Amino acid sequence: MATAEQTRVTDLNALFTPTSIVMVGATEKSVWSNGIAGRLADYGFDGPVYVVNRAGVDVHGFPGFTSCKAIGKPVDAAYIFVPVAAVYDALVDAADAGVRGVVILTSGFAEVDAEGAALQERIVALARERGIALLGPNSLGFANVADGRALTVIPPRTPIIHGGIGIISQSGATAAEIVKFAHQQGFGVSFTVATGNEALVTTSDVVDYLIDHEPTRVIAVYSETINQPYKLRRAAIRARKARKAIIILKVGKSELTAAIAQAHTGALVGDDGIFDAACRQLGIIRVSSIEELVMTAGLIDRVGPISRPGIAFVSMSGGSCGMFADLAEQYGLPMPQFAPETVEQLKGVISDFGTTLNPFDITGAVMRDPSIWTRALPIVGADPNVGIIVVNANSPQSQRDLAGANHQAGGFMPGIAASPVPGVYVTQVLQAVNDSMASFLETNNQPVMLYGLEYGARALGHLSRWSSSLDRETVGLVEKAGGSRPQGERDVLSYLDSRGVPVIPAKLVTSAQDAASHARSLGGKVAMKIASPDIAHKTEFGGVKLSLEGDGTVAAAFEAIMQSVTQKAPDAKIEGVIVAPMRSGGTELFVGTARDPQWGPVIAVGLGGVWVEALKDSAIRLLPVSKADVIDMFQSLRGARLLEGYRGSMPVDLDAVADVVVKIGEAALALGPDLASLEINPLLADGSRIEALDGLTVWSN
Amino acid sequence: MATAEQTRVTDLNALFTPTSIVMVGATEKSVWSNGIAGRLADYGFDGPVYVVNRAGVDVHGFPGFTSCKAIGKPVDAAYIFVPVAAVYDALVDAADAGVRGVVILTSGFAEVDAEGAALQERIVALARERGIALLGPNSLGFANVADGRALTVIPPRTPIIHGGIGIISQSGATAAEIVKFAHQQGFGVSFTVATGNEALVTTSDVVDYLIDHEPTRVIAVYSETINQPYKLRRAAIRARKARKAIIILKVGKSELTAAIAQAHTGALVGDDGIFDAACRQLGIIRVSSIEELVMTAGLIDRVGPISRPGIAFVSMSGGSCGMFADLAEQYGLPMPQFAPETVEQLKGVISDFGTTLNPFDITGAVMRDPSIWTRALPIVGADPNVGIIVVNANSPQSQRDLAGANHQAGGFMPGIAASPVPGVYVTQVLQAVNDSMASFLETNNQPVMLYGLEYGARALGHLSRWSSSLDRETVGLVEKAGGSRPQGERDVLSYLDSRGVPVIPAKLVTSAQDAASHARSLGGKVAMKIASPDIAHKTEFGGVKLSLEGDGTVAAAFEAIMQSVTQKAPDAKIEGVIVAPMRSGGTELFVGTARDPQWGPVIAVGLGGVWVEALKDSAIRLLPVSKADVIDMFQSLRGARLLEGYRGSMPVDLDAVADVVVKIGEAALALGPDLASLEINPLLADGSRIEALDGLTVWSN
Repeated sequence: MATAEQTRVTDLNALFTPTSIVMVGATEKSVWSNGIAGRLADYGFDGPVYVVNRAGVDVHGFPGFTSCKAIGKPVDAAYIFVPVAAVYDALVDAADAGVRGVVILTSGFAEVDAEGAALQERIVALARERGIALLGPNSLGFANVADGRALTVIPPRTPIIHGGIGIISQSGATAAEIVKFAHQQGFGVSFTVATGNEALVTTSDVVDYLIDHEPTRVIAVYSETINQPYKLRRAAIRARKARKAIIILKVGKSELTAAIAQAHTGALVGDDGIFDAACRQLGIIRVSSIEELVMTAGLIDRVGPISRPGIAFVSMSGGSCGMFADLAEQYGLPMPQFAPETVEQLKGVISDFGTTLNPFDITGAVMRDPSIWTRALPIVGADPNVGIIVVNANSPQSQRDLAGANHQAGGFMPGIAASPVPGVYVTQVLQAVNDSMASFLETNNQPVMLYGLEYGARALGHLSRWSSSLDRETVGLVEKAGGSRPQGERDVLSYLDSRGVPVIPAKLVTSAQDAASHARSLGGKVAMKIASPDIAHKTEFGGVKLSLEGDGTVAAAFEAIMQSVTQKAPDAKIEGVIVAPMRSGGTELFVGTARDPQWGPVIAVGLGGVWVEALKDSAIRLLPVSKADVIDMFQSLRGARLLEGYRGSMPVDLDAVADVVVKIGEAALALGPDLASLEINPLLADGSRIEALDGLTVWSN
Repeated sequence: MATAEQTRVTDLNALFTPTSIVMVGATEKSVWSNGIAGRLADYGFDGPVYVVNRAGVDVHGFPGFTSCKAIGKPVDAAYIFVPVAAVYDALVDAADAGVRGVVILTSGFAEVDAEGAALQERIVALARERGIALLGPNSLGFANVADGRALTVIPPRTPIIHGGIGIISQSGATAAEIVKFAHQQGFGVSFTVATGNEALVTTSDVVDYLIDHEPTRVIAVYSETINQPYKLRRAAIRARKARKAIIILKVGKSELTAAIAQAHTGALVGDDGIFDAACRQLGIIRVSSIEELVMTAGLIDRVGPISRPGIAFVSMSGGSCGMFADLAEQYGLPMPQFAPETVEQLKGVISDFGTTLNPFDITGAVMRDPSIWTRALPIVGADPNVGIIVVNANSPQSQRDLAGANHQAGGFMPGIAASPVPGVYVTQVLQAVNDSMASFLETNNQPVMLYGLEYGARALGHLSRWSSSLDRETVGLVEKAGGSRPQGERDVLSYLDSRGVPVIPAKLVTSAQDAASHARSLGGKVAMKIASPDIAHKTEFGGVKLSLEGDGTVAAAFEAIMQSVTQKAPDAKIEGVIVAPMRSGGTELFVGTARDPQWGPVIAVGLGGVWVEALKDSAIRLLPVSKADVIDMFQSLRGARLLEGYRGSMPVDLDAVADVVVKIGEAALALGPDLASLEINPLLADGSRIEALDGLTVWSN
């Protein structure tokens, strides 16, 4: 893994806000060349533009030169679309001319074959050496829509709608589809980029850039592979501070890799599982379709974070209320019941209002009297648990619907305006912004819109969870080389003990007398097992005896274990016998760390036994974890209900468990990057007594 | 519950295909009256229309009368929209005039208060008595679009698009939204109805009617409450034979009722759980939004059932392939890998084709040469596992996109036409059919369309599963009065034994000698427990002894049990002691029946112990169940993986278990409708040895 220093791209400004541009490879005949020139005009670029071609002739009305150097004036950025064999020399020429930002459209690099990959490496080395921010190769370019600068072949949907959505897509075709859907729904865009091969500038870099791009309020990403995830992690922590949302549609959920199948934990961890965990932890919103991506981006662009997670849904249609209630449950939306004072005040507005229900059916009474909206919505918005109001009413699809829709909007728009929290209007079905809808939006001063209850509900759920996540602290990863290398149960438990993790008071003894004496000091029954780094399956070698009590019994067990093991495993190194108190009852938990080659150290937790082994029921997070992370992990388990106690077993003290798991995570990090896995299995939770009963490490190399 | 005979509506034809119509309550001033008259014209009704009002004056150009009787000519159907107080008399008048189909628009009945409900009951009684098919009250009416007849106030979206989707909605507002979305997407409609209060004609009735309505090929339902579910069940079995799909958007998923919380099973069963189970069993497609409802209906209308479940996705965009792969996994789509001969033939068409992947990235090579589609698609369609081809390419949003989109369609449309299985075109994002799209569709001879990968994937999953379900046999419910009333473990197990359910060879003994002798005949260790109808918690009374072997031990245990129980429960009726072989190992299953007040007898299965008790992990179906149903139930459990064996336990022989569960279901049905619950807990499955270890019945009254 390259270090952050090696791959940091220092200046994306020359690339994304150039004041002068050169098109390298321009000819009147090329569809690409014409496209790029057309886009410069479409997006309103008004700085000097030069073209470079072999003949040095003017093209598209721009002055022509035989090389960038020949221009003789400073140029910020170049779009290179010469044949693949000529790209390297073109880049040298651009660098020599002082160009600091380069987009390469040409394909035929790492995406094709090994030869292409080698050429791509040469180009990247050159760009690094000359301090060039290189986008691509195989990139359809970018449009800094807000700033009127573009080096792209992707045409805008016209008329261009300006807004705060920054779009990053690895695929150019998908970038175009995202823009298409955003335009159909009337959502405005600040920036679009197709990152192509991401040889140098990655999605993570552009996310980081857009956090400082003032017109961008929300960052919408389509990704096939997250390159440089550590950069994305850093950027996500910055984005949280800047209160800009990152929304990612990442494909590849269906492919799990076994790349990190180390020890036991690895098998629980897929690439996608880690990405999912990272999103949850870092406050990144993850979506599963372009429609959801755009709808969520459009909402957050207009509304920003909400101050309370609760969503109030108000509709004149009982059907909508029913459907939204189901969707809210399906997508986990917090729909608080109205406070008594809210209900009391609403009764003053709506005579036959008798329920405290949310979704709130304001009924067809608003058909005759839309001022009911105006009076009711500020009351709903003042409810102490409501952070956003969602209004649903008749929406226009044709001219004939307009009068009715405007009549209602005349009631609810002032109601939203007078509310202390933001309000959004959702249509029942997903509608395109056609002429009738556009007229409605203009007449009513551009309400914040969501289209369709289902995508609307998903977007609102994301908004609510994202807003809540802004308060959470997420600590970045700082890893140091480790010191000791504990190995084997005894070493590992003793190391954990030294790091403040409660471990079972086991003791290594080497004589029958010591065994008896330690058992006596513990009181009650003890378990005894052989201590040997060479014996993994202790029971099979007669190395385990349970439920022992009394000096004589314990001493005899010591002798029996030693005899059995030396007989069955004559070559094994024997350290002695471990004497520990018998534990019965309680809930067995599993805690294990692993190391992802991309994301670094991660931690998994689960219920022990069948849950982890047969059902793979576990939760994963990046290390370090906070206490809140750990509680969230356990609560997300399918078997979470068992933590509440079952058939007389005590409920697990999750708070106490979380403290311990945080410490286990810290203990794993302190062992340094050579630790492949640290596993505690089981971690026994009996009420608030938490104890590691067994521990295991695996080391790389 | 009313019987089927009481509520059967014999003639919906007079209502839905009237040749003459009367509007009762017509005035030029009323917005309703104008609406209804306008709709008659919109839908092209060409039979005689009369109006009735107090003055008997002509309205909307139709001849006016003071009553229906005064018309003096036969009239098939009436739309009544007089004030609520006048509805009863208006219905009497209509009945006297021989009207056989009536829609009541007027509201103020059961949906309002008890008085309204009483009036509604009077109206229903009258309609029944006079043989009138009554729609409503509180109904916005129907449009038999295909046959050009309509009694409705809901305006059509124009121009009307004719097709095979029949729409049934309890809510009028939602009916209008369904029509709106279908129209936006260009899907054609055969029939729409808003059923309102469903006082007489229910959604189930109209579903049944539309199975025989020839132009309707798919029935799309929005429902808040399924009235008369037994009718829906019957209709669903008929629909399966007619190969017409029923698709239902039912709200209320989030509200679970405890109405049938009898014994243990009841708590596992919610209203919605039963509805979900019924859908799965009856081949009804359940959806969760209007968009999904319409998209699925639109697809099935055009394609009909497919002959193989497998879906092949072919796209020129790698991004689309990735997104569709994830969506396919999320929504459970069968995406078969191509057969070797398919791969071989595709290599002949596409030079650099090296994978057998589905989704199949046909690559941007089709940009230059769309004939690749033409050659590749018939090969894909001939794959032995593929039942439908899904094509994804650039789709037009504006005029500028048309040339490119048509260029591609010129390749793939002939490819689809030459394929042995149907093909459908899916756009990457959900697009409205605007002018550009409409032009594209017309140019390319109306391809079968899906809009947006996400709703597309959902619709395709429904199509595939529904098509497969058509082969399944579903037996209707025939219930008879039961004979015996087994009660208590011994009775119940003996009853089950008589019905062919394998039960543990337990024997009731009344002496120590008999106990010893039965234990000897069983061989191995035995378990003994007190047999008493008065003692539920046997262990607490010293009524259970386990792992006994040898005459003396068994005899002593008999005496000990009798002594302990008579001492601790002196008033309990003692039948003796049950001696049964000890069972260890195997997997404990739970099987229980319950009775839903609406749907009738149901059966639930689960894994025993914690799974059913703490995690409520169970599956439910209507009785009777088929073997395939039972296997499907067990496989749907969250803990299903445990049935494959765990830590050395034998895998459960699901086939053998299913045979037993079918018999348990039959045994429960044979006990008649007074049986509230029959529970077998546990049913022990040890490899292929299946045995009921304990049984319990609960009776109503």
